[in-house]
Amino acid sequence: MEKEKDFHTSKFKAIKNIGIVGLGLIGGSLALDLQRIGYTVHGVTHRKESAREAEKKKIAQVISTDTSILKKCSLIILALPLEKILNPEQQLINALPNNAVITDVGSVKEPVLKIWNKIHPHFVGSHPMAGTNESGIHAGKRDLFKNKAWISTPSANTNSNALKVIEQLAISLGSQWVIADAKLHDNAVALVSHLPVLVSGALLQTVSNEKNHELLNLSKTLASSGFSDTTRVGGGNPYLGVSMARNNKTTILKNLKSYRNCIKEIEDAIISEQWSKLQQILEENQKFRPEFL
Amino acid sequence: MEKEKDFHTSKFKAIKNIGIVGLGLIGGSLALDLQRIGYTVHGVTHRKESAREAEKKKIAQVISTDTSILKKCSLIILALPLEKILNPEQQLINALPNNAVITDVGSVKEPVLKIWNKIHPHFVGSHPMAGTNESGIHAGKRDLFKNKAWISTPSANTNSNALKVIEQLAISLGSQWVIADAKLHDNAVALVSHLPVLVSGALLQTVSNEKNHELLNLSKTLASSGFSDTTRVGGGNPYLGVSMARNNKTTILKNLKSYRNCIKEIEDAIISEQWSKLQQILEENQKFRPEFL
Repeated sequence: MEKEKDFHTSKFKAIKNIGIVGLGLIGGSLALDLQRIGYTVHGVTHRKESAREAEKKKIAQVISTDTSILKKCSLIILALPLEKILNPEQQLINALPNNAVITDVGSVKEPVLKIWNKIHPHFVGSHPMAGTNESGIHAGKRDLFKNKAWISTPSANTNSNALKVIEQLAISLGSQWVIADAKLHDNAVALVSHLPVLVSGALLQTVSNEKNHELLNLSKTLASSGFSDTTRVGGGNPYLGVSMARNNKTTILKNLKSYRNCIKEIEDAIISEQWSKLQQILEENQKFRPEFL
Repeated sequence: MEKEKDFHTSKFKAIKNIGIVGLGLIGGSLALDLQRIGYTVHGVTHRKESAREAEKKKIAQVISTDTSILKKCSLIILALPLEKILNPEQQLINALPNNAVITDVGSVKEPVLKIWNKIHPHFVGSHPMAGTNESGIHAGKRDLFKNKAWISTPSANTNSNALKVIEQLAISLGSQWVIADAKLHDNAVALVSHLPVLVSGALLQTVSNEKNHELLNLSKTLASSGFSDTTRVGGGNPYLGVSMARNNKTTILKNLKSYRNCIKEIEDAIISEQWSKLQQILEENQKFRPEFL
């Protein structure tokens, strides 16, 4: 009861010290924005070399490879790769104050909640929809989250004050605050984020399977912005691709099968020269896309 | 013999009048650039309304819906949609001077050569690799072809002086001049231009097939630049998509089948949880892509 009372007073505006675990693209960008807003940011990074680089770039006011610097923090953001969020080190768990609010940035939420709801009473699952092609200690940049969706996925036992703190965090970063069920979130990202990565990757795979060197060389000359855009996410970080497939397996497989059926439908229309059917499919696609921009 | 002699003297630099049939994105852009270089451009457009618009925008010095204005031209560029290049109106054929050089801008070259090599003795097949999402009389813009590849696909009976004229045209527009066999060209564009359109379109189709409205609404909120880029070409002009499928059918079907096998390979790796195999595929894709940028 006493603890709960302590916690009630630690609303976002009353928070002074924010901990960020992981200072890559997401963690580094959060740290830069939160410093500017006026918070004291305590950044934890795994490697000493990264800590030195982060200090040089003034990514946070306090930087260490030692998780004990989190002891002073009332809000801690786990800006780690998904696999590390799902397999947290005991040292990290031990360093999290019991009355702090904890959130993460993982792109899959059901498996994260399953683990973290047991670890910490004030955990809130988050997925800020921001990213660039870059990664690492030099990737952080200001305003990365501005005008982007910040999805949090509370479950039945999520502490409502902790959720309020994360809402205020998202709003203070200029994000659009979205609440969603974790399973629905995982299905939605499978469809518009994970599926595109694999669809785009398979296109690169198809071209690289081509054995005719003369054809490949001419293809390199002819490839323009269309090829570049369609293959961008498929040519990204392989670790991320595997991680989403591992942790959102069932939904991704369902989507891949539906997708393969759509490819087959297009093939069949072309084989049987049903040009009006193909025209209709492509017209519907053209009309549908603007809803997602 | 006399005609051939006349023709020999009409090298690109000696040319004063250039005809452009079709004043959309490609034709309009060519007209603007060629006027600036110092040529008198005669633009033919199908509709009177378009002719008036083109006159207002000063896209060409002479503008008409009447193909007879082409009589004065020593170089004529057919900047028409592929289907119209493949099914030319008799009136257009009749208006082409016998000693002029004729080229086109179609994205498939074997079917074009099959028809046009019979129609005109100085025909050269071309495919300038330039485009934007826009189309129509207002789409034309300067320097569209600068630093882009301009592929010409001479056949055994292509007139070498006509080819020289088109080379000089491409160079004067700032394009990179590329010569390729028509069949090899069609295979290459199938791989890096036509296949991406269908792969990208099938992704939109898969998402639009989703029946759960709550899921679709959340997906719209979560869709970010990755979804936007991967679906860009698939959400483009349906007419172009059908046209490429019709006229490059065999090669596109071969590519779609290879692509579907790649999707199946990814599915199988995920089903059997062969994460190191999936990692290897995605790593190879990441390494392969920069060669095509």
